[in-house]
Amino acid sequence: MRIGILGTGMVGKAIAARLAELDHEVLVGTRDPAATLARDEPDRYGNPPFRVWHEQHPGVKLGTFADAATHGELVVNATAGAASIDALRLAGEANLAGKVLIDIANALDHSRGMPPTPLVSTTDSLGERIQRAFPAARVVKALNTMNALLMADPGQLAGGDHTVFVCGDDPEAKTLVTRLLTDAFGWRDVIDLGDLTAARATELVLPIWLRLLGTLQTPMFNLKVVR
Amino acid sequence: MRIGILGTGMVGKAIAARLAELDHEVLVGTRDPAATLARDEPDRYGNPPFRVWHEQHPGVKLGTFADAATHGELVVNATAGAASIDALRLAGEANLAGKVLIDIANALDHSRGMPPTPLVSTTDSLGERIQRAFPAARVVKALNTMNALLMADPGQLAGGDHTVFVCGDDPEAKTLVTRLLTDAFGWRDVIDLGDLTAARATELVLPIWLRLLGTLQTPMFNLKVVR
Repeated sequence: MRIGILGTGMVGKAIAARLAELDHEVLVGTRDPAATLARDEPDRYGNPPFRVWHEQHPGVKLGTFADAATHGELVVNATAGAASIDALRLAGEANLAGKVLIDIANALDHSRGMPPTPLVSTTDSLGERIQRAFPAARVVKALNTMNALLMADPGQLAGGDHTVFVCGDDPEAKTLVTRLLTDAFGWRDVIDLGDLTAARATELVLPIWLRLLGTLQTPMFNLKVVR
Repeated sequence: MRIGILGTGMVGKAIAARLAELDHEVLVGTRDPAATLARDEPDRYGNPPFRVWHEQHPGVKLGTFADAATHGELVVNATAGAASIDALRLAGEANLAGKVLIDIANALDHSRGMPPTPLVSTTDSLGERIQRAFPAARVVKALNTMNALLMADPGQLAGGDHTVFVCGDDPEAKTLVTRLLTDAFGWRDVIDLGDLTAARATELVLPIWLRLLGTLQTPMFNLKVVR
């Protein structure tokens, strides 16, 4: 499948690497590909620059946001949440029309240093804002409640015995995403929380996630809904 | 141990019943004991009136909020979150001074019907508001992230293989509460999230909890932090 991934951070790289490994045709989009490749410093989390990763993953193409959206039959929003709407505008509303758009992003305010402050609400969500701004895209919120390394390879933790949530207004899009999660990534417990208003709830998981990160001193944990 | 429980709802009753069963001296406090006993209608969740439960639990005493705070060496806030500060004022600041106060409450807005809207924030919490209003009480936020029936009897679900969070500014108070959770109630996985600002994170679990309640159509579930 042709998959466009918006964002060259930890999430974009983790999802891209896994999908390329599974023989999908992956194009990662960024604002300015030349600038992304020219960057020499580690990112804010201390990860090596994108160029290093790209040399290790030659099967993954790099292009603009618009290139990624045009390329993908499925598009993944793995940009920083606070910049997602801007990135999606650059990707192009027409290029996203009719496509399944997996929104993994969480909006964070880094202005006060680490840990960042989640920009969350009980009455709206980034997922819904994206759907309103791009009504012809088929937005499915998923994978935004765990570390990037677990998103595409949940089996790394407890043999995959933990939970991922999906929600969205398009049942067919959710079925496609759920199949990707189970068949490609190996998720065993996918809970469909219903329509896209559930993105409020999954984005509100971020505060407890960040607190657990501080307490456990490792990002290799996830929630399991025991029932 | 003498334990005072503020609130005659599902949470107060569940905690009181379990502690009485374990031979603690339990006094449940309410605004107006005569009115509580006179009530004949089921509560908003369809549970029988308090009087029926009280006849089944003759070992549990009923009194005012102030009676419960005076009686308890340990006090439990099991009132509705939106009314907790008022209830604690009636309990009496002096009666709470120096005592461990377990705050189980979640603030909910029922004005728009079911499901209620959680009154939550990333910059403050009910637990912190209570600590600020009653600085001499030793507030520990705990047990506010699962159904009342599981709080005091976690073994009912998956043999107790799920998680409860504690947080607070008084390490000794947290140790006492953690011991109550493990030794009395049977919790196997208690995560200490640090100081009371973590109550923001645990109170923010409510939106995903409510969404899961709607999806799973049973309150008999809980989160486990897999790590």
